Amino acid sequence: MRLRDFGVVPGDLPPGSNNAITDVPGVRVGHTTLVNGDGALMPGHGPLRTGVTAILPHAGNLYREKVAAAVYTLNGFGKATGFEQIRERGVIETPLVLTNTLNVWRAADAVVSYMLRDNPEIGIAASTVGPVVLECNDGFLNDLQGRHVSEADVWAAIESAASGAVAEGCVGAGTGTACYQFKGGIGTASRRVHDGEFTVGALVQTNMGLRAELRVLGAPIGRHMLESHMPQPGAGSVIMVLATDAPLSARQLRRLATRGALGLARTGTVSHDQSGDFLIAFSTARRFPHTPQTHVETALHLHENTRAIDLLFQAAVEAIEESILNALVAAQTMTGRDGNTLHAIPHAELGHWLAHYRLIEGA
Amino acid sequence: MRLRDFGVVPGDLPPGSNNAITDVPGVRVGHTTLVNGDGALMPGHGPLRTGVTAILPHAGNLYREKVAAAVYTLNGFGKATGFEQIRERGVIETPLVLTNTLNVWRAADAVVSYMLRDNPEIGIAASTVGPVVLECNDGFLNDLQGRHVSEADVWAAIESAASGAVAEGCVGAGTGTACYQFKGGIGTASRRVHDGEFTVGALVQTNMGLRAELRVLGAPIGRHMLESHMPQPGAGSVIMVLATDAPLSARQLRRLATRGALGLARTGTVSHDQSGDFLIAFSTARRFPHTPQTHVETALHLHENTRAIDLLFQAAVEAIEESILNALVAAQTMTGRDGNTLHAIPHAELGHWLAHYRLIEGA
Amino acid sequence: MRLRDFGVVPGDLPPGSNNAITDVPGVRVGHTTLVNGDGALMPGHGPLRTGVTAILPHAGNLYREKVAAAVYTLNGFGKATGFEQIRERGVIETPLVLTNTLNVWRAADAVVSYMLRDNPEIGIAASTVGPVVLECNDGFLNDLQGRHVSEADVWAAIESAASGAVAEGCVGAGTGTACYQFKGGIGTASRRVHDGEFTVGALVQTNMGLRAELRVLGAPIGRHMLESHMPQPGAGSVIMVLATDAPLSARQLRRLATRGALGLARTGTVSHDQSGDFLIAFSTARRFPHTPQTHVETALHLHENTRAIDLLFQAAVEAIEESILNALVAAQTMTGRDGNTLHAIPHAELGHWLAHYRLIEGA
Amino acid sequence: MRLRDFGVVPGDLPPGSNNAITDVPGVRVGHTTLVNGDGALMPGHGPLRTGVTAILPHAGNLYREKVAAAVYTLNGFGKATGFEQIRERGVIETPLVLTNTLNVWRAADAVVSYMLRDNPEIGIAASTVGPVVLECNDGFLNDLQGRHVSEADVWAAIESAASGAVAEGCVGAGTGTACYQFKGGIGTASRRVHDGEFTVGALVQTNMGLRAELRVLGAPIGRHMLESHMPQPGAGSVIMVLATDAPLSARQLRRLATRGALGLARTGTVSHDQSGDFLIAFSTARRFPHTPQTHVETALHLHENTRAIDLLFQAAVEAIEESILNALVAAQTMTGRDGNTLHAIPHAELGHWLAHYRLIEGA
Repeated sequence: MRLRDFGVVPGDLPPGSNNAITDVPGVRVGHTTLVNGDGALMPGHGPLRTGVTAILPHAGNLYREKVAAAVYTLNGFGKATGFEQIRERGVIETPLVLTNTLNVWRAADAVVSYMLRDNPEIGIAASTVGPVVLECNDGFLNDLQGRHVSEADVWAAIESAASGAVAEGCVGAGTGTACYQFKGGIGTASRRVHDGEFTVGALVQTNMGLRAELRVLGAPIGRHMLESHMPQPGAGSVIMVLATDAPLSARQLRRLATRGALGLARTGTVSHDQSGDFLIAFSTARRFPHTPQTHVETALHLHENTRAIDLLFQAAVEAIEESILNALVAAQTMTGRDGNTLHAIPHAELGHWLAHYRLIEGA
Repeated sequence: MRLRDFGVVPGDLPPGSNNAITDVPGVRVGHTTLVNGDGALMPGHGPLRTGVTAILPHAGNLYREKVAAAVYTLNGFGKATGFEQIRERGVIETPLVLTNTLNVWRAADAVVSYMLRDNPEIGIAASTVGPVVLECNDGFLNDLQGRHVSEADVWAAIESAASGAVAEGCVGAGTGTACYQFKGGIGTASRRVHDGEFTVGALVQTNMGLRAELRVLGAPIGRHMLESHMPQPGAGSVIMVLATDAPLSARQLRRLATRGALGLARTGTVSHDQSGDFLIAFSTARRFPHTPQTHVETALHLHENTRAIDLLFQAAVEAIEESILNALVAAQTMTGRDGNTLHAIPHAELGHWLAHYRLIEGA
Repeated sequence: MRLRDFGVVPGDLPPGSNNAITDVPGVRVGHTTLVNGDGALMPGHGPLRTGVTAILPHAGNLYREKVAAAVYTLNGFGKATGFEQIRERGVIETPLVLTNTLNVWRAADAVVSYMLRDNPEIGIAASTVGPVVLECNDGFLNDLQGRHVSEADVWAAIESAASGAVAEGCVGAGTGTACYQFKGGIGTASRRVHDGEFTVGALVQTNMGLRAELRVLGAPIGRHMLESHMPQPGAGSVIMVLATDAPLSARQLRRLATRGALGLARTGTVSHDQSGDFLIAFSTARRFPHTPQTHVETALHLHENTRAIDLLFQAAVEAIEESILNALVAAQTMTGRDGNTLHAIPHAELGHWLAHYRLIEGA
Repeated sequence: MRLRDFGVVPGDLPPGSNNAITDVPGVRVGHTTLVNGDGALMPGHGPLRTGVTAILPHAGNLYREKVAAAVYTLNGFGKATGFEQIRERGVIETPLVLTNTLNVWRAADAVVSYMLRDNPEIGIAASTVGPVVLECNDGFLNDLQGRHVSEADVWAAIESAASGAVAEGCVGAGTGTACYQFKGGIGTASRRVHDGEFTVGALVQTNMGLRAELRVLGAPIGRHMLESHMPQPGAGSVIMVLATDAPLSARQLRRLATRGALGLARTGTVSHDQSGDFLIAFSTARRFPHTPQTHVETALHLHENTRAIDLLFQAAVEAIEESILNALVAAQTMTGRDGNTLHAIPHAELGHWLAHYRLIEGA
């Protein structure tokens, strides 16, 4: 189930064929989903409601052929790794990995191991490698302290990465996370601009927002659902990834990433104090060799005093908004540790209110 | 006319008594409005559709008693002055002045003259002074190149600053500016949190947004008004000012300012390439002497691991959203140079669509 | 008189033919020097010991053919204009202008007038323009409050800009400024890297530093000159400009600018609280049209995983260090308002101590 | 052996009793040193020349009583963790841990385990925890890929942390690192300001710099030692930690951290492309409870328009410079994997050149 199945279309730009981040040619996504055990939390033992999602900018060796990237921190109370290096050098050189909060460092170490496998010169005859791992806190359902994501789990997410349709909701890093105090998880969407010359894709890991804040296509739907299975924990974080094949520099990608926060805002959150709300954007248009053969080269570059950049901004806003709502709609009710439950948003109610607010026919 | 006159209430927190930035005790606002001439643009001669808006954090000598402040740049394609000093030192020491784009530097110079009048030691026996001036481009209606805002106009805005209700729409720095391709201008609003212990006030100078983007309380109203008096020029900038009496540090004020961008996003814009979208936030809770008598002092400070900071964030989002919509609703149709016209949003149509989308009764 | 006339050579890389910022092909520098009146300070009337220095990246229309640029703020207690736009868009579109602190805004307005002359579409049929003006406080010698730099003075500096050797010391914006409590002013230097494939040029306006901090080529010479004509005022600001013909992006230029601070540090200052210590770097390698004909183009780009970037960093450090010392050595004793005097560093003493510390033969 | 044993005194301010970061009351330092095996590199097996250094701001529970902190990135090509959270929230809540590049994430995970032991509510009934780990690349001597630093090693460094004198050179995280292509490692120093009212302490992990760049108290000593046991690898990173008991806010601590880069520059490096040159500064003056009892409190605060802040800046510059030189002087020749050797700077030669440049008597 995706948002568009309700008959609503967020924004004006057309999506790519899968309405997913994988519509950007070459981009692949893989998930490892870990669901195991029930009942009382036994820290270190379970239950497990967690996972890993990996995003690969291209099918080659990312260390030897890096891609341009930028980050934007809307609210920095999170554990993202690799941001300093991206800011300085303007590239990423590993898969992007999403997981839960306390597993960030084990996952980062697993990414390093993965990179060493294919690039045994790292740290010996070449410089080192900077993994990029981001997270949300799934501790309401999951044994967070247990840090159950293993190296094998991370590798599996990377190696299973594929193009085409992307599983959403309670999968991968979204297995145990929330969305406006409903169950949420992974969501994705895309937009095509300039008659398809460029594509912008988004993928999010949701955990943010208070129920009362939820807006669906602007309609204040959350406030009508305050009685419906409200869990105790408050607002959490959100991770937002943007991919494009437009030839953007790191500086321009940072501008794009900033717009993602505007797409998030359309869904209602105020970016609470206790959240790590991060954006990362990359461009597949150009590959930066780890060992350049020359010190100068020619490369494509997007001009800014044109309509193109504004369309890319719009695409980022729309793709992020729809990704978040896709995560919300796709997720199914999940019960985890101590019987804690995050309920899926009731689709019938959602449809009712979309109709009530005249965003779709009916009611 | 204000947004609430339509029967809609953006957000959940209660406003202050004037629903204005002046609800923060001590804050005062003054306008100088310049409307003169008609017909063909004669650069340097008119017509004039411009002005100045001044915001004073307190009634004392701002140079000798500075207040904590922070800035946030959503999109930096604008001419704001004073930001480097605010980032470094965390205070403002002059009135905040809003005007048009090409008049920024004359207005800044006028603020310096004003500060010299009351602080003749500046640059002789004391350090210098850093004026803070922000702007939007009113050149669709106004002789922008003429830079018609004089020193007297700036001083008049400062000296007329008052507490209480604040004029909105086509006044002061908003005289010639737009809002989602309707006429816009100055808007203001406020929110009280913690049972009124703290107040957050907002004041905006709008010029941003494409018509199709406009959302009013989330409803996609702009797309229904595309035929209605659409001017040629596209999206411009927006200046957003936040005031509070909560004892926030400069770092915390930056966090507050960042939330203003989320309030802006609720109204629909994607923050276009050609815009200077700036936020500035200040706190009146504490005064920083220019010449401290001691090198340490005690001061109040807000804790972050509390609900208070989230309520302040929510207040900032809501107050900015409502300020923008207040500017939109308050503004009246204005014709300027070359017969160019920015039309007020048709109130009847707006009411119709608010009812259509079930945000108010009727229709 | 320049530093190398003492027989010392700072750093290892060779300078360009003029050892000046103008060694970067196309870069031109112009000065307007204002020295008028003596005796008691009469604010608004004099005496004058001030001026303007203009740096032009190329001889074309800078608005229509912008160049890549970046800024770095070491200490932000200053009044620089234009930084937000440079950070966002990565280009400059006007001459860089240096002047005194309280004249920044009048000078910026003068730059706007200058740009309007050649680009009458600004603000009417095109977007606006963002002048970049930087400053030091020359109020110890000069009637700072008087803001005596006129529009004509700014234009004269721009229009007199020339390639070739650059006047140093008490000229232009350096007419009234200090350097480690000696007389300072304008200094310049350059370095060639990769067998002359690339050039890095620097130009500084000095006003920073306490006498005791002064290091010349590392030797702690300042502490031996504490008795020598010590003026009352303490440390001020420093403006540092870097130019290169290497094809650096805005992100890479920011990295280059950051290194300038390390060159400054070699001369001893700790970047005092009351200083605006700013760097700006630009590249002449590529011109960005104001009105692009296409939305993508190909352009040269420097790879980072090569030795080239480190050589450019080294060049920036060396050129800034030598520029500062050139300003110190070139400046002559200047008496200004109220009989206040900034003394030139005594060359004989300087030579003595350079010899004492075995940096040159002799002693 | 420390720098002052040569008879030279860097800077003007007096050191604390141990001339170490531990002169800031409450600050403690612990090392785990791992030296094991010889001969050919067998990735995953050895040899080991690495370790861990832990810095604890106070003896209490850092999670429940956080301290103000700030970061400054001079060059971001490194793997530091925790920076986003520090920028957002202005505090640290774990020990600071230094180790080698590829062990960062295992060390961060070990810090999390350590924090969980004493704060079992983390991730269950409280928010999560953000470890701060920094690194240099010791792969010239050490089996970097092996990531041999275990959880027990990290805990041992934390638990052995003590006040008083701090071991320098080839200990802890400095076991395998360089300094201007000599052997380097850990160094520390301190300065007292305002008659001892405040102390600033520094601790560094060196790995940066080319031999030719090395300046000792400004004297260009490195260029005289180019023939002396020059290893192949070029310049690496440097980690710089500043502690103070002055009541600085996060914003003020960032200003202090920035000055550390000026102290580094005095020793000669240009901060090469391939380096992660990071500074972190914290203040012990105030403790921020994880669970505040009230949302406002009063706290001490340092005024900026006073001499105090400049003295703190000077203290940071001097303490960093001396720390780096202490690391250089203390380190002993170390042979590691594949027979690779980093040689200690020859003390006799160093003394000779200090005398030659008249920084000490003799020669």
